[in-house]
Amino acid sequence: MQNFVYYTPTKVVFGKNAEDETGALVRAQGGTKVLLHYGSGSVKRSGLLDKIIASLNSAGVAHVELGGVVPNPRLSKVYEGIALCKKEGVDFLLAVGGGSVIDSAKAIAYGLAYEGDVWDFYEGKAEPTACYPVGTVLTIAAAGSEMSNSSVITKEEGGLKRACNTDYARPRFAVMNPELTYTLPAYQTASGAADIMMHTMERYFTTEPDTQLTDALAEGLLRTVKDCALTLRDAPQDYAARANLMWASSVSHNGLTGCGTVGDWACHQLEHELGGMLDCAHGAGLAAVWPAWARYVLPTCPARFAQFAVNVMGVTPAETDTATAEKGIAAMEDFYHAIGMPATLRELGYELTDAQLDELTEKCTYFHTRTIGGFQILNEKDIRAIYAMARG
Amino acid sequence: MQNFVYYTPTKVVFGKNAEDETGALVRAQGGTKVLLHYGSGSVKRSGLLDKIIASLNSAGVAHVELGGVVPNPRLSKVYEGIALCKKEGVDFLLAVGGGSVIDSAKAIAYGLAYEGDVWDFYEGKAEPTACYPVGTVLTIAAAGSEMSNSSVITKEEGGLKRACNTDYARPRFAVMNPELTYTLPAYQTASGAADIMMHTMERYFTTEPDTQLTDALAEGLLRTVKDCALTLRDAPQDYAARANLMWASSVSHNGLTGCGTVGDWACHQLEHELGGMLDCAHGAGLAAVWPAWARYVLPTCPARFAQFAVNVMGVTPAETDTATAEKGIAAMEDFYHAIGMPATLRELGYELTDAQLDELTEKCTYFHTRTIGGFQILNEKDIRAIYAMARG
Repeated sequence: MQNFVYYTPTKVVFGKNAEDETGALVRAQGGTKVLLHYGSGSVKRSGLLDKIIASLNSAGVAHVELGGVVPNPRLSKVYEGIALCKKEGVDFLLAVGGGSVIDSAKAIAYGLAYEGDVWDFYEGKAEPTACYPVGTVLTIAAAGSEMSNSSVITKEEGGLKRACNTDYARPRFAVMNPELTYTLPAYQTASGAADIMMHTMERYFTTEPDTQLTDALAEGLLRTVKDCALTLRDAPQDYAARANLMWASSVSHNGLTGCGTVGDWACHQLEHELGGMLDCAHGAGLAAVWPAWARYVLPTCPARFAQFAVNVMGVTPAETDTATAEKGIAAMEDFYHAIGMPATLRELGYELTDAQLDELTEKCTYFHTRTIGGFQILNEKDIRAIYAMARG
Repeated sequence: MQNFVYYTPTKVVFGKNAEDETGALVRAQGGTKVLLHYGSGSVKRSGLLDKIIASLNSAGVAHVELGGVVPNPRLSKVYEGIALCKKEGVDFLLAVGGGSVIDSAKAIAYGLAYEGDVWDFYEGKAEPTACYPVGTVLTIAAAGSEMSNSSVITKEEGGLKRACNTDYARPRFAVMNPELTYTLPAYQTASGAADIMMHTMERYFTTEPDTQLTDALAEGLLRTVKDCALTLRDAPQDYAARANLMWASSVSHNGLTGCGTVGDWACHQLEHELGGMLDCAHGAGLAAVWPAWARYVLPTCPARFAQFAVNVMGVTPAETDTATAEKGIAAMEDFYHAIGMPATLRELGYELTDAQLDELTEKCTYFHTRTIGGFQILNEKDIRAIYAMARG
């Protein structure tokens, strides 16, 4: 087991009508004027924004609005938010939405505490040393950004999708009412489930031994998400499944399921370039590359994949770890298909050319300057091979 | 699933040589002069205190010392600490030890931020509204106080053991080096494991439905602690088992394994009076009352005990939930015996008289003013019956 630091200061307020607490939560953090940041108009049409504004008003918190955040949130919107917040004297960022909105709010929060160009942090040209406070009202179980230290932003010029991860950006609070996710399209729910599972799988696939507690927590979470996703396919308004899935989204990405492991994150790196190029749903993109990644790296540690197969996918052990592992990967593909997720890029809806694979590979290596992966270190050749396997 | 709030702001620094971070961690919290609070001289003899003092010195943090905290920590020591800290201008409480030392530090921290008598908070006469900051260097995996909101103090006069639970007292950081627990006596290690399991079992035994994720995390934790305790019986310097047990101590009592459940806590209430009267090890006292409690309340929800039997104790299901549940309770007794823990008060080492059972019962009801339990509400008659069953 590796040494580790675990830090999850976000206060989670979970359950029915939790959004009524928003104003008091902002106030408790010292916020006096918030940026209400959101995506499409669905939070307006559903009446959620009105409920939140009422809660802010009753707590004496002023607000300005900025909607229009899109999936794979754009740097241009971040710049717009920074300018608006400076002009309006905003002192607290309130993200109402999912991972894209939260990540955009975090980027604005970084930018407000920095003299330079906020993209510096995402390019690795500078390190954040401060951040304005962020709070969230979650409307989709997926990204885990409501408790995570992560923000991922896409720069339109060049289609570059890059992450900035620091504890400064961990939200002060996360308001989670599972009922707010009842009306999500089935594809978004399933894509969210794939994303949630991957946040733990990225941590779980490790060659580090002796992480029994972390393994047990990770495997329990993965089984639960799998069950919830299957339930919601048939019963989208099942409160228990919505609630367990939503809580899993946070637990899966707040660090708990990686304590003492090394972490891989290759699939996230592979998918980031897909998102940047194709603008696909993040979870669906992850599902489309995972089986190829898994088969490519399996020989590094078949025992770990066999453990996954048995303890998560419920596979009966075969004669060898490798055979058990392969059954587990196939079971995962079956699960993806069962919830309407792709298991290849073709199933994701794209017939990629060789030139496109080359472009994805080049970007994924940050233009020939890095390798990816922790379970197995992947160089440019490996990355190209996995993209090719994932083509389907 | 019940609505819930989850809040665990404690920064965990975990692993080999973690104690070298102590000075920097205090400094990051704004501490300039700490009370080094500890128990017996073992932390001095082992050289741990010297390492911590070196770390404080190199971070420019001054300190004063107060040792002598005993198991079931005493109110008189808390008063002594408050007076010393006021005199010395201490602004940060650093607990070096286990639950008793941490709970004592929390009580001092409450007292420093309060004009009145700190016992008011433990008696329920007043509610804390502030607390000095507390940090910990953990030396035993057991109480979970390093991340919990709880402090339990015993008032010598009357042998009253009472708790005060507020988020103000959650430690700012917890330094956890599993190697520091290598030299613990086997009985203390086993008692710690029993305590860790009970912190999750108190939350797990609930009649609240639909807590699948919390159940999966709780069951995974309980299985892990069971395995580690058995390993450590034979190999007390097994790093993996020490590390997993130590991390489990925190996760088991930071709230995670109770999200959405109701929580019972009857066994803790039953044991608090044993600790107050007999000064027994807390975990051993819990083990001594659990089987009696379990058999007494089983009829309220046999299905829950059957789930515990199968998913935690690895029992093969019997024909009825009740039969499966009884096998699970028996398996837990066997486990207690396997690690040298008692399953009755007689095995704990006490032949209690009827008059003593009456006294325990009276104190446990706070002198006829309360019931206990959430899984099944227990009145005075129930409490007396469980103590009698536990006598063995």
